[in-house]
Amino acid sequence: MTAPIHAFYAQSGGVTAVINATACGVIETARRCVEEGNPRIGKVFAGADGILGALFEDLIDTSLEPDAAIARLRHTPGGAFGSCRFKLKDPREERALFERLLSVFQAHGIGYFFYNGGGDSMDTAAKVARFASEAGVPLTVIGIPKTVDNDLTQTDTCPGFASAAKYVATSMREAGLDVASMARTSTKIFVMEVMGRHAGWLTAACGLASEGSEGDETPPHLLLFPEIPFDEKIFLPRVEHCVTRYGFCCIAVSEGARDTSGKFLSEQGVRDAFGHAQLGGAGQVVAQRIKEALGLKYHWALPDYLQRSARHLASQTDLEQSYALGKAAVEFALAGENAIMPTVVRLSDKPYRWKIGSAPLEEVANVERKLPREFIRDDGFHISDACRVWLAPLIAGEAYPPYRDGLPDYARFMNTRVPKRLPAFALKI
Amino acid sequence: MTAPIHAFYAQSGGVTAVINATACGVIETARRCVEEGNPRIGKVFAGADGILGALFEDLIDTSLEPDAAIARLRHTPGGAFGSCRFKLKDPREERALFERLLSVFQAHGIGYFFYNGGGDSMDTAAKVARFASEAGVPLTVIGIPKTVDNDLTQTDTCPGFASAAKYVATSMREAGLDVASMARTSTKIFVMEVMGRHAGWLTAACGLASEGSEGDETPPHLLLFPEIPFDEKIFLPRVEHCVTRYGFCCIAVSEGARDTSGKFLSEQGVRDAFGHAQLGGAGQVVAQRIKEALGLKYHWALPDYLQRSARHLASQTDLEQSYALGKAAVEFALAGENAIMPTVVRLSDKPYRWKIGSAPLEEVANVERKLPREFIRDDGFHISDACRVWLAPLIAGEAYPPYRDGLPDYARFMNTRVPKRLPAFALKI
Repeated sequence: MTAPIHAFYAQSGGVTAVINATACGVIETARRCVEEGNPRIGKVFAGADGILGALFEDLIDTSLEPDAAIARLRHTPGGAFGSCRFKLKDPREERALFERLLSVFQAHGIGYFFYNGGGDSMDTAAKVARFASEAGVPLTVIGIPKTVDNDLTQTDTCPGFASAAKYVATSMREAGLDVASMARTSTKIFVMEVMGRHAGWLTAACGLASEGSEGDETPPHLLLFPEIPFDEKIFLPRVEHCVTRYGFCCIAVSEGARDTSGKFLSEQGVRDAFGHAQLGGAGQVVAQRIKEALGLKYHWALPDYLQRSARHLASQTDLEQSYALGKAAVEFALAGENAIMPTVVRLSDKPYRWKIGSAPLEEVANVERKLPREFIRDDGFHISDACRVWLAPLIAGEAYPPYRDGLPDYARFMNTRVPKRLPAFALKI
Repeated sequence: MTAPIHAFYAQSGGVTAVINATACGVIETARRCVEEGNPRIGKVFAGADGILGALFEDLIDTSLEPDAAIARLRHTPGGAFGSCRFKLKDPREERALFERLLSVFQAHGIGYFFYNGGGDSMDTAAKVARFASEAGVPLTVIGIPKTVDNDLTQTDTCPGFASAAKYVATSMREAGLDVASMARTSTKIFVMEVMGRHAGWLTAACGLASEGSEGDETPPHLLLFPEIPFDEKIFLPRVEHCVTRYGFCCIAVSEGARDTSGKFLSEQGVRDAFGHAQLGGAGQVVAQRIKEALGLKYHWALPDYLQRSARHLASQTDLEQSYALGKAAVEFALAGENAIMPTVVRLSDKPYRWKIGSAPLEEVANVERKLPREFIRDDGFHISDACRVWLAPLIAGEAYPPYRDGLPDYARFMNTRVPKRLPAFALKI
């Protein structure tokens, strides 16, 4: 019997309500191999703060966590082992970083690398796979998708997106009822800014909250996508129309909404007391423009991190896919696949059926999938019926976490470190 | 058998996730009287847009809604019949308004007035009761408490508060896990602004999210109450301390936080592109100050209406009390009480036990109950253990709404109007 080969798992980029469910899928599946007397994957080491954990040789030994703790990953939001925003560029520029990665992997008997992130991370994973292969180092690299932005190509959906989608749609429906009941004497304009710097998937999800044949009879009445340039001359009369017809107007704005010259709305409106431009307020800018032009009282909401960490309102579909993709990553690795990413393949909309597929990392890397034009209503201010059909099954099912004393009972982990075997590595982050 | 006397029910001021549960308690209890062959309350008419419905004789006939629709009030947020911000001043100044109210009540055989609101509304209810009594018009007036601000006196808690409390505490816990996992390379400061212009109850509720013996080991690390003047010289070193010790700092800020000169933080920092001061950004101001002084990357969240309409995360305790207070209002009225408000009386903290009591409207009117100093930790930046014990039972229990197609299935009502019997009334709102 040969010594088992260990695995390294790292979370990358912005975390989500269900990224730990993917970690759970990876670790539980790897453990099952061991239990079945077929320990082709030994321990799963997790990177403390993502890929930095590999570079700094700061490894978490997940094998020390009892099964019950690992099971709790399924209902705990955030990144249990820490994540980071750190992109490995090109091996030709940063050869030392790639060599360091392989040294750490070799020092700890790591032969599997599972990288859980978005487009940038898939690019990194692809480069690591190529670098190892060229160096003649045996390493299996599997990317696992994750992003609330839903902007990865090759996969039908990205884990994390559907839960954030369920949250923003629910929030818009609830706030819309609030505004509707107060509009006669109070707020007439409600603006909610949602995530999605380059792609309008979460903005589109807000549209699910609206009902009625025209799609804008109940909130949200208007959606501002990053894919559609914001033109005040068209937009403001639409707002007026809604206020006249419904008594109020609820609007979802992408943080990445841009004006007709391509400039982010968030870059133009608001200044601090010192006159510095303040970023991050597309919703605020839109609300103010309406106030200035139409004189209507507004409120605006910025759910910010709340939307991507709202595990209390996670989608059951999302949870299942997040876990399944982690599980599939291990299974693909054991089946001898390399440099791929497991994907969700949609088989049918209604009833919703999906299966796991895969795509080469090279084809996923650095490609942003925007909201297709046919998912946006002709006038540019709402979602199309096709989009509604596509989105609907993703937010289905409520995957409630357990509660203790009235609050979600989220896990905290020991995150015990693996003793270091190498000298320290100098890296400025 | 005498003709039944009808009732008028109106919602007032900002709506909540559970104000309709109170409406449900009122209407179902009144219906039960009728079913029991003792129709001392005939129909319940609801004011369209609150008290304006009475002034404009715009009455909704709730008797036309089937029992099943009324039952759905229990899980639908917002104000089902509409609410308003409109305060009747003094009968000596606005005699015509008070006379109009009584005319409309008399024209429709209304002898019971249930007014569901906050301190201002209790003041109005008290004045209406006195005016009717002095005019020799038989009218029973019962106030029913409601406010997410939890600032009414005489009652232990106010319906709506506990659900908003559960929401902000959950949101802070979730966002805190997100920030914790990213802090090494990304956001180090997270600020969430919560409601409560004059009283820090919702800010205090955020504190429930933190665990650990010192109360600030897990997010939120710092709370900024309206009751404690914001002093940058003390605050900024505390932020630095948290970042050093925990790697990040999560802060909940009341929208009503003020500086040491008593000026609202929201009134000072942010200006729009035209240089106009922008209100409503205490959280934004605090985040910017930290950025300017300490150079730390921040994110901030503004849940705004989301926090008071989040029926998807309502507290079971809150739901039960909201319903019970509506029910009690009708029972008190039938028992011959007048000019009172049913209250929640706490019997014990652990196990949590409460009963319904009552207080004269005059004693509730216009008194704001702030967070007591003993509920704030000595240093002013967190809640005390006493506060934790007091708050904990309020957020207990999850009262999930039904879901359809992945979203909460909230009711919409017919809101059929009662035919008018009086000439129109001129009123500028």
